[in-house]
Amino acid sequence: MADVHAARRERLRDRCGALAADAALVTRPANVWYLTGAEPDGAALLLTRDRAVLAVPEEVPQDAEGLLLQQPEDVQRLEVPPGADPAVSAATAAARYRVAVLAVEEHDLTVARHRAVAEAAAPARPTDLDRAVEQLRLVKDEEEITALRISAEIADQALGELLESILVGRTERHLAMELERRMVDHGADCAAFPVSIGTGTHAGLAGHLPTDRRVEEGDFLTVALGARYRGYGASAARTFVIGTAPAQWQIDLHAVVFAAQRAGREALQPGTPCHEADRAVREVLQAAGHTEAPPRPVGHGVGLEIAEEPRLGPGDMGKLDARVPVTIGPGVHLPGRGGVRIEDTLVVRPLGEGGPELLTITTKELLAL
Amino acid sequence: MADVHAARRERLRDRCGALAADAALVTRPANVWYLTGAEPDGAALLLTRDRAVLAVPEEVPQDAEGLLLQQPEDVQRLEVPPGADPAVSAATAAARYRVAVLAVEEHDLTVARHRAVAEAAAPARPTDLDRAVEQLRLVKDEEEITALRISAEIADQALGELLESILVGRTERHLAMELERRMVDHGADCAAFPVSIGTGTHAGLAGHLPTDRRVEEGDFLTVALGARYRGYGASAARTFVIGTAPAQWQIDLHAVVFAAQRAGREALQPGTPCHEADRAVREVLQAAGHTEAPPRPVGHGVGLEIAEEPRLGPGDMGKLDARVPVTIGPGVHLPGRGGVRIEDTLVVRPLGEGGPELLTITTKELLAL
Repeated sequence: MADVHAARRERLRDRCGALAADAALVTRPANVWYLTGAEPDGAALLLTRDRAVLAVPEEVPQDAEGLLLQQPEDVQRLEVPPGADPAVSAATAAARYRVAVLAVEEHDLTVARHRAVAEAAAPARPTDLDRAVEQLRLVKDEEEITALRISAEIADQALGELLESILVGRTERHLAMELERRMVDHGADCAAFPVSIGTGTHAGLAGHLPTDRRVEEGDFLTVALGARYRGYGASAARTFVIGTAPAQWQIDLHAVVFAAQRAGREALQPGTPCHEADRAVREVLQAAGHTEAPPRPVGHGVGLEIAEEPRLGPGDMGKLDARVPVTIGPGVHLPGRGGVRIEDTLVVRPLGEGGPELLTITTKELLAL
Repeated sequence: MADVHAARRERLRDRCGALAADAALVTRPANVWYLTGAEPDGAALLLTRDRAVLAVPEEVPQDAEGLLLQQPEDVQRLEVPPGADPAVSAATAAARYRVAVLAVEEHDLTVARHRAVAEAAAPARPTDLDRAVEQLRLVKDEEEITALRISAEIADQALGELLESILVGRTERHLAMELERRMVDHGADCAAFPVSIGTGTHAGLAGHLPTDRRVEEGDFLTVALGARYRGYGASAARTFVIGTAPAQWQIDLHAVVFAAQRAGREALQPGTPCHEADRAVREVLQAAGHTEAPPRPVGHGVGLEIAEEPRLGPGDMGKLDARVPVTIGPGVHLPGRGGVRIEDTLVVRPLGEGGPELLTITTKELLAL
């Protein structure tokens, strides 16, 4: 694993060269993790031509089990006193190493921190790293995809168990907590994002925060969940119906969202523009009369962050690459009635390799629970 | 409640006047909540002399149960299209309202967002709001203190129930999840921060993330938890011993931390410098030979954020005010053996009103469980 991280740091050094910077200061937690395999709270990574220095608050105990043990030995640890900002300490070190141009993450540093970093780095001049680490993170290696696959399996197992239990009468909050516990039971580090359970009129809403509403007969039930495994998290959403038989409007709405989601999945090809899947989804929804929905991009990349690049929205002109994991998750919500949301995580693969690889395999049929 | 928020916005307008700004753009979520009683994901509040405009992503559904219903009617809602940044939309509105100087939160906006906000606000000139909302949030009103008191009661109830159950053989992760579930059962919105359970060699570590280690006879067990209730969260930590009788070193270490924590609590008086409680704690620990510990400030403010101003560390020269809720939470960790951490949340009150008000009332004695 240390080799993987060292190779990633080498690629970042190349990018720095292209930016005419002789060092990078990485502060975004997912980016620090990507480059070191460690992500102690508040850590900052300084990467010069010949050094990698991880500035860490000294109160992060070295003997505590966990991430620091994974820290590769070719990364030097710089302890930062309590109250001091590791990014500022790393910038001071950059000045000491005679860095002339220091690339920093302007999309992560606040204005106040950037000012403190620039002062500490002087005479080094700060410039923007321009999301270089995010660009490196876009295409995943097979080890990363394996972590995402396991993440998806864990969520599938937790969801499968929940579907076998009695749901009527239980609150959205309890179902969400139970899913989180089951994911941890199956090996997740934690939930990759707060589990969303929407019942009745809440079903189909994106990012709905669970309430004390109880599941009732006849409800739609939308579950959105993801497990964090070795830093990586896939995302899935399913919608079911509670009771013996769904109503006709429920069957119809589910069929439309299901067809739209399939059209989106089928549009995932290397070389296809990112907006293509979104367009495919919207066409199906609009043909069924859902002209407003969905107002949000139909998908996004997943990896160390649950919504990372690329974005699959109407205005996103970039092209998909092989080994980019993305979500396809359209939904329709009818105010006052509820709705349907169906989301998968898939890895873009060429047709010659079988096309998009589905990671989240729980059935998307309209089960009556 | 709308009156409370309107009064807070009036006070912020006064602060803007002192900064020679004719409007403020508030982006930090806890600050938006403080000023409006709402905190939709990604919302930004523009406050001019005669308007309050809350820019909200349009995908945040208005009919979903929850926070938006609490949004006061004198705050205008500005819907922001998907993918657009509410802060930028609010800045555009500021330009339309002929704002000349716009105070922004430089400790919250990233460099990249600040640039986009400044462009959108032109010809308005951005300046720093200088943590004005954080300053307003420092001293709490009695309604806020009531929310913190209920938050503390919820955590006390959850912890009390856990202590009556069998702990040996259960993992840190499971105990943490059970505490979270119990807090929600007792009315918490969610955990105010990830519940920390440290057993054996992990006991006494600050911010320890639960692992799969199982509780064993003879272990120290440290629990740190807090419930979020109506946005507010108190924080508490306790250390117990597993088994029939603690070992002598455990009794001794607990007594030292307990005495240090009491000295810190007794130093909480209006007008006392913030570093005084820290000094009082350290004196006791050092007299017992724990010269290094604790490396972190002994306490901090709590409210809408779990660690907010003031900070109670050695270098913190500000003075405590009445109605400021703070934590006092020293710990000692002996590498390879474990340790003790004891934390309370208290509200600073004058001696005439009975002195500091203890919110977290679970016993701090060394219980053998």
